[in-house]
Amino acid sequence: MGSAPIYSKTTRIPTMITKPTLLIDKQKCKRNIAMMVSKAATNHVSFRPHFKTHQSLEIGRWFKELGVDRITVSSLEMGQYFSSEWNDITVAFPVNILEIETINQLSKTITLHLLVESVDAIKYLAQNTINKIGIFIKIDVGYGRTGLPPASTQQIDEILSIISASTTLSFKGFLTHAGHTYACKTKEDILTIHNTSKAILTGLKAKYIDRYPGLIISIGDTPSCSVADDFSGIDEIRPGNFVFYDLTQHQIGSCTIDQIAVAMACPIVSIHTGRNEMVIYGGGVHFSKERMEIDNQVTIYGIVVEQLEEGWGEPIPGMVLKSLSQEHGIIIVPELLISNYKIGDLLYILPVHSCMTANEMKSYKSNDEVISRF
Amino acid sequence: MGSAPIYSKTTRIPTMITKPTLLIDKQKCKRNIAMMVSKAATNHVSFRPHFKTHQSLEIGRWFKELGVDRITVSSLEMGQYFSSEWNDITVAFPVNILEIETINQLSKTITLHLLVESVDAIKYLAQNTINKIGIFIKIDVGYGRTGLPPASTQQIDEILSIISASTTLSFKGFLTHAGHTYACKTKEDILTIHNTSKAILTGLKAKYIDRYPGLIISIGDTPSCSVADDFSGIDEIRPGNFVFYDLTQHQIGSCTIDQIAVAMACPIVSIHTGRNEMVIYGGGVHFSKERMEIDNQVTIYGIVVEQLEEGWGEPIPGMVLKSLSQEHGIIIVPELLISNYKIGDLLYILPVHSCMTANEMKSYKSNDEVISRF
Repeated sequence: MGSAPIYSKTTRIPTMITKPTLLIDKQKCKRNIAMMVSKAATNHVSFRPHFKTHQSLEIGRWFKELGVDRITVSSLEMGQYFSSEWNDITVAFPVNILEIETINQLSKTITLHLLVESVDAIKYLAQNTINKIGIFIKIDVGYGRTGLPPASTQQIDEILSIISASTTLSFKGFLTHAGHTYACKTKEDILTIHNTSKAILTGLKAKYIDRYPGLIISIGDTPSCSVADDFSGIDEIRPGNFVFYDLTQHQIGSCTIDQIAVAMACPIVSIHTGRNEMVIYGGGVHFSKERMEIDNQVTIYGIVVEQLEEGWGEPIPGMVLKSLSQEHGIIIVPELLISNYKIGDLLYILPVHSCMTANEMKSYKSNDEVISRF
Repeated sequence: MGSAPIYSKTTRIPTMITKPTLLIDKQKCKRNIAMMVSKAATNHVSFRPHFKTHQSLEIGRWFKELGVDRITVSSLEMGQYFSSEWNDITVAFPVNILEIETINQLSKTITLHLLVESVDAIKYLAQNTINKIGIFIKIDVGYGRTGLPPASTQQIDEILSIISASTTLSFKGFLTHAGHTYACKTKEDILTIHNTSKAILTGLKAKYIDRYPGLIISIGDTPSCSVADDFSGIDEIRPGNFVFYDLTQHQIGSCTIDQIAVAMACPIVSIHTGRNEMVIYGGGVHFSKERMEIDNQVTIYGIVVEQLEEGWGEPIPGMVLKSLSQEHGIIIVPELLISNYKIGDLLYILPVHSCMTANEMKSYKSNDEVISRF
């Protein structure tokens, strides 16, 4: 049967990069954070950034330095991780009643807000919570994933009456995530969705504000929050992805290439001159299998950028990550460029979806510093 | 700046399932292992299973119990993890010369085999290795990802002459991975590829056997190893995915549904009767974003199966995982069935690609036992 495992995994990354590594450009990242902090302040909306993208206490502190004091997460587990440094957390996910124990633990020490979109869920919470919890009703503004349709007045009223009768629960307001902005092709499309979200939520606010004078309305997607300039009527924004941005956000017009704050560094392990391709150590377990289509309907998993002394620069025309296996990636290289590379060189690659890539990678590297995460 | 992180992650999973959990059916898994062990024995081929699918020392011991004494992994890191219990390991990935330190460490304690597909790589190894290492030349039999084309006689000979002059390196043989079987639609297509691989590798063997009487030829994909019955001329097989199988393997004809040995258990968090959909806690960070098309060109990320007292049974017709966000999944439910479910129920879902799902999940649950991994 063999002996007990003696191997223990550490998170140390040597100064020299030898395997797939997620680089972070601190300056770009901090600039993204400052931009959104300033946008929220200018528009007089409360800023509750979503931390599911970076999942890092250390990066969280860069928000704290700019006065941010409340956050959003996507799971109770992530809430537990951040609760060591943050005491006002919204879990922006339809409450999972099976985790009631974690809910009761977490709400003992921090101000916890949960999302509810059914009478069953609120009944369960009313019966099983022991500490104060703020409740948002999740509204579907057209994304069609989660949330109550805005016209579900009967269900909303039923949820509200259960909250009213509860000693632990209090109603905080209406919240939405217009995730369908991710499928937009233009800024105009994003703004159309943003305006619809605003109209729906401000309509609900107008309807219920007399009964709940403190209620707020909260929106959340990075495309809307990046592109829109009019947040009138909105009380809170919760974007997350903007902290890093990525190729998807660039494609839909939410950011410039220069704002993308993370890149993967991957070693070249093989060069196939005959077919103008190179193989990198860097696969689906590093990038995630998130993909996108570019202009000519080619599916890609990343774009290679030029390496600078500090960080990286512009995309190298024609150099894309065309496919991924578990550990391998295939890079297309223009014929004229292929002789510039040799095995053991590193390629820097912008990810299609930074949330998913960061989730795979577990840590970030900024020069010689390793930034750890959840 | 806040205080230092006080949260530390543990891998404990409570007996009751409260969040996305990867279930393993030990019996099915052990049956899959026994089947492949027996197939290798019947065909007089050496069995060097790929451990990148399960990545677990404990599951590795189920192979040991049946006499397996050599393994394949997909990274040096994974080789380090398994080296505590295995002393004959092939890293089936074009050698990453940047990890020379790990190569020299690992080859000090175990019999290590590496894959080479360029003159540059073998030169580097000849100059920088300090312990004995076995070398396989990777051959591309048509997959077009890695490996030298079989007709690259000049490069093969150059690699061989560098090996001959080296005091640390020795030539072990030719190795391929016919990954294009994964795109097959029928068993016949798989067998056609299998026969081509055999013909190419046995051709190379015939050419070099006089100079290298001990050379072996090694093939590796699960579809070929599952479907083929003729391994004449082949010396070694290295399938990996068969330990769990999955929906992709089922679709191409490598396995029956009953052989799939892992399923995700995910809590229902929301039910949308109006659109016959349910939302589960279970997203891309749990399943991976691997997807497949079923009959009617619908893209799916998993199929819901019935729950049995012990494990799971057949797929529930019409219940599929249609989309994934970071933490959410959307399940399509036939109208007649939706009233059977309530929030807090668990759904059992077969994954599209078990290697990727297992890689996301980090541990397995079998009844009350938690099986950990790399």
